[in-house]
Amino acid sequence: MINIAIMGHGVVGSGVAEVIFSHSDSIEKKAKRKINIKYILDLRDFPNLAYSDRFIKDFSIILNDPDIKVVAEVMGGVNPAFDFVKSCLLAGKSVVTSNKELVAAKGAELLKIAQDNNVNFLFEASVGGGIPVLRPMAQCLNANEITEIYGILNGTTNFILTKMVKENLSFDVALKMAQDLGYAERNPDADVLGHDACRKICILAALGFGKHVYPEQVETEGITKISLDDVDYADKLGYVIKLIGSAKRLDENKISASVYPALVSHNNMLSGVNDVYNAVSVKGDAVDDVMFYGRGAGKFPTASAVVADIIDCVKHLSARKYLSWDEGFDGYVEKLENTPTKLYVHLEKCNERTLDEIKALFDATEILNNGIAKEIVFITKKDIEKALREKIGKITSATVKSVLHVI
Amino acid sequence: MINIAIMGHGVVGSGVAEVIFSHSDSIEKKAKRKINIKYILDLRDFPNLAYSDRFIKDFSIILNDPDIKVVAEVMGGVNPAFDFVKSCLLAGKSVVTSNKELVAAKGAELLKIAQDNNVNFLFEASVGGGIPVLRPMAQCLNANEITEIYGILNGTTNFILTKMVKENLSFDVALKMAQDLGYAERNPDADVLGHDACRKICILAALGFGKHVYPEQVETEGITKISLDDVDYADKLGYVIKLIGSAKRLDENKISASVYPALVSHNNMLSGVNDVYNAVSVKGDAVDDVMFYGRGAGKFPTASAVVADIIDCVKHLSARKYLSWDEGFDGYVEKLENTPTKLYVHLEKCNERTLDEIKALFDATEILNNGIAKEIVFITKKDIEKALREKIGKITSATVKSVLHVI
Repeated sequence: MINIAIMGHGVVGSGVAEVIFSHSDSIEKKAKRKINIKYILDLRDFPNLAYSDRFIKDFSIILNDPDIKVVAEVMGGVNPAFDFVKSCLLAGKSVVTSNKELVAAKGAELLKIAQDNNVNFLFEASVGGGIPVLRPMAQCLNANEITEIYGILNGTTNFILTKMVKENLSFDVALKMAQDLGYAERNPDADVLGHDACRKICILAALGFGKHVYPEQVETEGITKISLDDVDYADKLGYVIKLIGSAKRLDENKISASVYPALVSHNNMLSGVNDVYNAVSVKGDAVDDVMFYGRGAGKFPTASAVVADIIDCVKHLSARKYLSWDEGFDGYVEKLENTPTKLYVHLEKCNERTLDEIKALFDATEILNNGIAKEIVFITKKDIEKALREKIGKITSATVKSVLHVI
Repeated sequence: MINIAIMGHGVVGSGVAEVIFSHSDSIEKKAKRKINIKYILDLRDFPNLAYSDRFIKDFSIILNDPDIKVVAEVMGGVNPAFDFVKSCLLAGKSVVTSNKELVAAKGAELLKIAQDNNVNFLFEASVGGGIPVLRPMAQCLNANEITEIYGILNGTTNFILTKMVKENLSFDVALKMAQDLGYAERNPDADVLGHDACRKICILAALGFGKHVYPEQVETEGITKISLDDVDYADKLGYVIKLIGSAKRLDENKISASVYPALVSHNNMLSGVNDVYNAVSVKGDAVDDVMFYGRGAGKFPTASAVVADIIDCVKHLSARKYLSWDEGFDGYVEKLENTPTKLYVHLEKCNERTLDEIKALFDATEILNNGIAKEIVFITKKDIEKALREKIGKITSATVKSVLHVI
């Protein structure tokens, strides 16, 4: 038997406890020993649970109990999670977490401490909820140089965009619906402004390319400015608008990494990823594209990924797992304006010169002319973003209503 | 440094050698030691390769060399691969393979031998080429009871069906095109009759549900009878025809497992899997649906999966990996006719009574009436297949042209 502790009894934490209790036989078979939840750390009281006796409020009880070999951190946030996790690793306890904010901010540091103390720090649940992504990337794609990673990394925004696209609801109405269904929080900023997706692409890029990427290095744009007009025009051009986190290896010491709403072609599998589903596409030099798809959040999907990591730690108590990456540095992430892209441009108040201007400036082929509304939308050829934005600034016969990336 | 042998220098085998040579630095970093190809077993001569000196024709050299700790079997076929693999495992060498025929026929036996000899037998490349499927199922979904697995498991047939659906080519023309492109062999039976997909669903079901499933236990139907009429009618009803391998847990000692062409709803992500791409959908009780997608075959995708397994073996020379399942038994796979399904029925030579007959027998709602051709197609409600087939046999006012499953 092995004793573990769970830190946090919120949505994910209670799911972890429930999965361990309800699957105890099969988990024992897979871990080759029984897993016993000895402590659950939470400041709140849960007097009516069958396992109420395991709750504690003092972290030092976990830290100082040599019986505890594996700790699941499912509190969220950087503080005090970081101090707790660091202390556990230094004390020779393996830690698993679903906390993307923590991993994105402190991953390299914690992995180093885990390595120095010959314990494991695993965080499969931090990206894509229950979808296996990090471990397959780290293990199965081992024989590949990973060149690009991109995907739909946030279920809340994908739900909102799906409602806008399929049911023609405005952003505000779709957000309200997401909140009513419990997919979005009362303060939805972390989701709709792209911060959550940003943390996930940081983790994916760090694992894929070997160096830490900090959230503040990633230019991040949310979905709050997406209009139904753009949704409609995109559809007519054969695209759907998705919030895309992406990272690309430029050279050994340079990557691009960003989060923005983008037009995704109907021919791309990502265009079919709807509602709260997530999908991560990974490009390797040998395997080409592979994609991982599933529910990117939710109590039990996320909890099941945490528990799989716990099982892995139990099986590798004296062996280090594969995960690691180096510290990042300033200038590692190239500015978006210096990277190549296609842009979707939405012009209003067009006049009879506008089409000619577009053709002269951009050599664009995907053009939609809504003469009635005096609007024209078009998609540029691929070029360095700064160059494209400069050309857009040169348009004199119309007003720029919106500009979006195209992947 | 660790010495390995590659058995077979065909498409996959030469890919394995190339990946190991071209990625030697990054592989050494990941495996934590250098991997040296000491022998390549092939009956043919390859005098013009940079590594010609490593070729041997006598298997016993590999078997009797205690230096060889890991062997990659990429010859294909059950014989002599089975004898070779078994001998290697018995001699304390870990084996990795891409050979689905071998794993589907002898997986349980070889896993047992590997276990008894404390070595590893890994075969990620046997399903889905380079797409990570087996390891994520076995590890990341550890905290789930897997309830269902289904997918597009054969790239050749998916290419053919895609050409039929998108370009309105007949089966024969699409097959010819696949052969010209090297996707289908001169004798395409293993692909188009469903045998290849059958082997893969056997492996997936064995890993997912814990007991070996033998190919002869799986009712298998290929795509040779699919007509363009059915492709068109399916499209009008909102479906696309795909060759689907599927397996479902019925109870502790019973599963369903089958391979057949089926109508897949446009709302299902699998409907967007085109050309030579594969996708495997796995349903777990906690995580719900997850899907793995990518190129299901091809030299480098498959080779990269073999090499990832080699790296894993090198890192676990003295530790057993997670993979294992028990022997199967007669009666473990339920007959298709006793399982619930929906059926698509295509009737010809219909008369004015036919619609009424359909409605009386099936309570069907998805009906398409092509009065000009005197044809009607419809989709039944879900019921036990035998009961549905009996009702179809009762139709007197028309002739049954084809019947297909619907998922």
